[in-house]
Amino acid sequence: MIKKINHIAIIVPDLDSSLSFWRDTLGLTLTHTEEVKGQESIVAFLPTGDSEVELVKPTTETSGAARFLAKRGPGLHHIALEVDDLDEMLMRLKEKGVRLINETPVVAAGGNRAAFIHPESANGVLVELYETKAG
Amino acid sequence: MIKKINHIAIIVPDLDSSLSFWRDTLGLTLTHTEEVKGQESIVAFLPTGDSEVELVKPTTETSGAARFLAKRGPGLHHIALEVDDLDEMLMRLKEKGVRLINETPVVAAGGNRAAFIHPESANGVLVELYETKAG
Repeated sequence: MIKKINHIAIIVPDLDSSLSFWRDTLGLTLTHTEEVKGQESIVAFLPTGDSEVELVKPTTETSGAARFLAKRGPGLHHIALEVDDLDEMLMRLKEKGVRLINETPVVAAGGNRAAFIHPESANGVLVELYETKAG
Repeated sequence: MIKKINHIAIIVPDLDSSLSFWRDTLGLTLTHTEEVKGQESIVAFLPTGDSEVELVKPTTETSGAARFLAKRGPGLHHIALEVDDLDEMLMRLKEKGVRLINETPVVAAGGNRAAFIHPESANGVLVELYETKAG
């Protein structure tokens, strides 16, 4: 079951100048930044309602986020839908023939578990399925 | 003040085939569809948590959504941030030199008021500021 939009991720080339818009101009609150090694990026977390806006700055040139930035410039990268049971959801998607980028979960920010659905199966949208430790 | 992510909007060429993924496969609930004449589109609303996923099918070939679809194919179009006072937010953004698509509010789905920030001022993201009738 999908519980909510956990976050939307925006790829940016520089956190400071991005925060000047999202935090200082729009008024969102920055709770913290975190280096997410598995995703080769530093992420700034700005919660709003029961979701978060995440600003993602690539730290290498090889990640998907870095290639997105080089090719298209900054912009919306993916949406993350929080699920209560990621394994069950992945099994269901496989049964229905949905194309997955991660057939098994990977480790995301905060040590949570995640798996991406290929945009080809989701109207051109990169969808992350996200399961928090709290469940 | 920003209260939450009101919705994320995904442009699609056909609602039925899109609902077969977002509703039937992922398990989101469709509450209703609505023709939004001001935006030349039919919108399907799928709430999750305190936000909504909106599937937007253009009904003309002249709207921004229709041109997005023709040029880039289906995909994430914009995020809508709900504010408590749209007029105050627009005044603040103008003072800070943010480039706006709508300098004054337009009528959005459900008769709510909205205004778009130009992606140039928002890391390539099309951001809708959204004020509901309830305030």
